[in-house]
Amino acid sequence: MKFLHTADWHIGKELGDYSLLEQQQTAFEQILAIAQAHQVDAVLLAGDLYDRSIPPVDAVNALEPMLKRMNIEAGLPIFAVSGNHDGPTRLGAGKEWRENNQFYLRTTLAEAFEPIIFGDTQIFMLPFIDPLEARVYYGISNETNELRTINEVMARVITEMQANFDPTKQHVLVSHYYVAGKQNETYDLTSETNSKAGGLKSIDVNQFNAFDYVALGHLHLKQASPSETVQYSGSPIKFNTKEAQSEKGVFIVDVNADGVSSEWVPLQPEKDLILLEADFKTLTDPAFYQQYSRQGDNLFSIKMTDRPAVTDLRNQLNDIYGEIVEIQFKQSQAQSISHTKKMTERAEQSNQDLIREFYETVTDATLTKHQAEIIDQTLTRLERKED
Amino acid sequence: MKFLHTADWHIGKELGDYSLLEQQQTAFEQILAIAQAHQVDAVLLAGDLYDRSIPPVDAVNALEPMLKRMNIEAGLPIFAVSGNHDGPTRLGAGKEWRENNQFYLRTTLAEAFEPIIFGDTQIFMLPFIDPLEARVYYGISNETNELRTINEVMARVITEMQANFDPTKQHVLVSHYYVAGKQNETYDLTSETNSKAGGLKSIDVNQFNAFDYVALGHLHLKQASPSETVQYSGSPIKFNTKEAQSEKGVFIVDVNADGVSSEWVPLQPEKDLILLEADFKTLTDPAFYQQYSRQGDNLFSIKMTDRPAVTDLRNQLNDIYGEIVEIQFKQSQAQSISHTKKMTERAEQSNQDLIREFYETVTDATLTKHQAEIIDQTLTRLERKED
Repeated sequence: MKFLHTADWHIGKELGDYSLLEQQQTAFEQILAIAQAHQVDAVLLAGDLYDRSIPPVDAVNALEPMLKRMNIEAGLPIFAVSGNHDGPTRLGAGKEWRENNQFYLRTTLAEAFEPIIFGDTQIFMLPFIDPLEARVYYGISNETNELRTINEVMARVITEMQANFDPTKQHVLVSHYYVAGKQNETYDLTSETNSKAGGLKSIDVNQFNAFDYVALGHLHLKQASPSETVQYSGSPIKFNTKEAQSEKGVFIVDVNADGVSSEWVPLQPEKDLILLEADFKTLTDPAFYQQYSRQGDNLFSIKMTDRPAVTDLRNQLNDIYGEIVEIQFKQSQAQSISHTKKMTERAEQSNQDLIREFYETVTDATLTKHQAEIIDQTLTRLERKED
Repeated sequence: MKFLHTADWHIGKELGDYSLLEQQQTAFEQILAIAQAHQVDAVLLAGDLYDRSIPPVDAVNALEPMLKRMNIEAGLPIFAVSGNHDGPTRLGAGKEWRENNQFYLRTTLAEAFEPIIFGDTQIFMLPFIDPLEARVYYGISNETNELRTINEVMARVITEMQANFDPTKQHVLVSHYYVAGKQNETYDLTSETNSKAGGLKSIDVNQFNAFDYVALGHLHLKQASPSETVQYSGSPIKFNTKEAQSEKGVFIVDVNADGVSSEWVPLQPEKDLILLEADFKTLTDPAFYQQYSRQGDNLFSIKMTDRPAVTDLRNQLNDIYGEIVEIQFKQSQAQSISHTKKMTERAEQSNQDLIREFYETVTDATLTKHQAEIIDQTLTRLERKED
C-alpha cells in the first residue's frame, strides 16, 4: 500500500501574536494535492493535530474542514493518533462516526492493540500516553517500579501488538513519541524534549524492529528520524527559528511484500521564515535588506546583536521587512534569564523547566531531586486533568 | 412518524459542587428504554446537550457514549440542535461524519433551511442563535434597525423554510428558544430568561403555525409549553429548587397526515430533589425528618428560616439527610445581596444581572440605560467569542 506520512500540524499555533492558520491552510492544500498526485491509498497523521488540548474556536474551524475535504470529499482514508499537544477526549469526540468513513482516530491506549486491516497491511495506532496512563490501564500500583519509563511501556505494548500480527501482512505503526536513534543525536531537539514531562524519556528505535514502517510525529524535523523505516515527517510549516533553515515536506511511503521505500516530497511555503542576525545599523542598511524579498512574501525572525537607543525600533524594522514574528536581543547567559526573554521562547520550554527557572531566579537555589519529582508528579496529574 | 422529544440534557451541570452525571446517566438509560419500548422512528434533541460551551472532559466522556449507544448501537436516528449553553463549533466538530449514520446535528443558521426528508416528514433544525449572528448571516449592517429582535429573525427564517416545504409531507421543527404562549405566563421562568441576553426576547408562538410539531428546548418545565403542538419537553432531571415539585419526562409524538398526538412519559428519578423549608429545631426533630427517605435515596435542598448558633450545622444536617446539594438561609431582600448568597443561585443569574448587582453593591447607584446597553453589547460580543 502507498501512504502519505505527515504529522505535527499544530493547528491553532501562534508565533507570539502571529497566527499561522493561513500558512497551515496553504500547507494543507499542498499535502492534499500531493496525496492525490501520488494516488496514495491513505494518509498517516501522526499526532499533534491541534496545538492545544482545548483548541480555540478558530482552530476547530480550520482543522475540521481540512479533515472533511481529505476524508469525505477526496475519499482518502486517514489513520491518526492524538499527540501530546492534543486533548485526547475532546479530539476524540465523535470518532466512532468518523471511523464509518475510514477515518481511524485513536486517542487511548486501549485502542492500540487491535490493528485495522487495510489491504495487505495491518495498521496499528498508538497515541501519545505517559507511563502513568499505562499503569492505570494495566492496573499497576503506583507504588511498584513497573512501567516507570515510556521505554518499558512501549516494550509491553509492542509485545501485545505482535500477538495480533498476521504474518501474511505488512505491519505499519502510527505513533507520537521521542524515539532516539543515531541520527537525531546530532540535532538540537530541545524544543520538543519536554516529552520528558511525567517521567517520559526517549524510546529505543530497536523496539520497532517488528514493524515494516513506523510513521512518527513529535519531532518537527525529518532529520530527527532514527532510521529509514522509523521516520519523522516533521511539521508541515516552520514553527521557530531553529527550523528556519530546514525544508518542510511529507513522506510518500510504499510498503509491500518486497520491502519499504519512501520518497521525500517538499512543501513550498507561501511565506518562508527567514532568520536574520545582525546589529541595528546593518539591519537598516539598504545594501543589506534589499537582498531579502519585501513585505508580504516572508516572515522574519530577527536576532539583534546590539541594543540601539531607538524608541521606534519595531516600527522601523516593520517598515523594512514587513511581517516580523519576533525580535530577539542577543545577550549573555545571565541576561537571557531576565524578563526580556521572549514569550515565544518560553512557549517552547517545558513546564518543568519554567518552574525550575522561576525557582532559581526567586530563591537563588536549585531544586532538590525530591522537589523536582513532586513538580513532575503534580504536572503529570494536572496535564491529565486538563486534557 | 413517531418521535421521542427530549431536550436540555445539560451534561456536566453541577449543583454547587454536586455533580449530576450519575443522575443524568440514569435518566439517559430511561430515555433510551422509552424510545425502544415505544418503537419511535427517531429522537428529537432540542439543544443544550452540554451545560457549558467548553464542557469538562468528564462531560464529554459521559455524553459521547450516550450518543453512541442511542445512534450507533440502538440504531435510532437523532435530530439535534445546539442550544444557548452549547458551544456550537466545539459541539459541531465532526458532525458531517455523524450525519452518515442519521445523526443530524445542526449548529449554525446556514444549516437551518434545508430539511431532512425523513419518511413522510420534513424535519427542519434551527439551533440557538442570537440576532447578531442572523445579521451577519444576512449581511445586514449593525447600523440599521433590521433584525434586532429574535422575533424578527424567526419570521424571516421561517419564511425561508416555508419556501422549501413539500405540501405532501408533514413539517417538524427542532429548536431552542424562549417561546411565549398563554400557558407559560403563569410559570416562574426566571432561571432561563437570561435568554434576554444580547437583545433576545421571546418569540410569538403563532410564528410556528405552519409546522405540524415544534420540539422545543430552553425552558426546563413541560408546563412552559405554549401549545399542544409547540412544546417544551423540559430537562430530564431537576436542576434547581424551582423544579423540585415538578415531574420530569419526555414526549412521544406521533405526526402523520391525520394530525399530531403526543403522550407524556415520565422519568423515574433514582434520586429525587426534595425541597425543605424550616427552622433548625424542626429540621433536626426526628418527628419531622423521619417522614423523608434516608441517605442515598434523595437529594435535599434546604432553606433555613433561622440562623442558629451552631458551628457544625452542615455536618448535623448531613448526618440526618444524607446528600444535601445546598443549604440556603431565608433572609430579607437586603440580606440576599450579601456575600452569603449561594453560588448555585448566582449560577442561575444572567451575566447582566450579576454585573448590575455588583455595580449597585459597590457604587450604591443603579446602572443608567446607556451603561446597561454597553454591558449588553459587550457581553454579546464576549459570548460569541467564547463559543
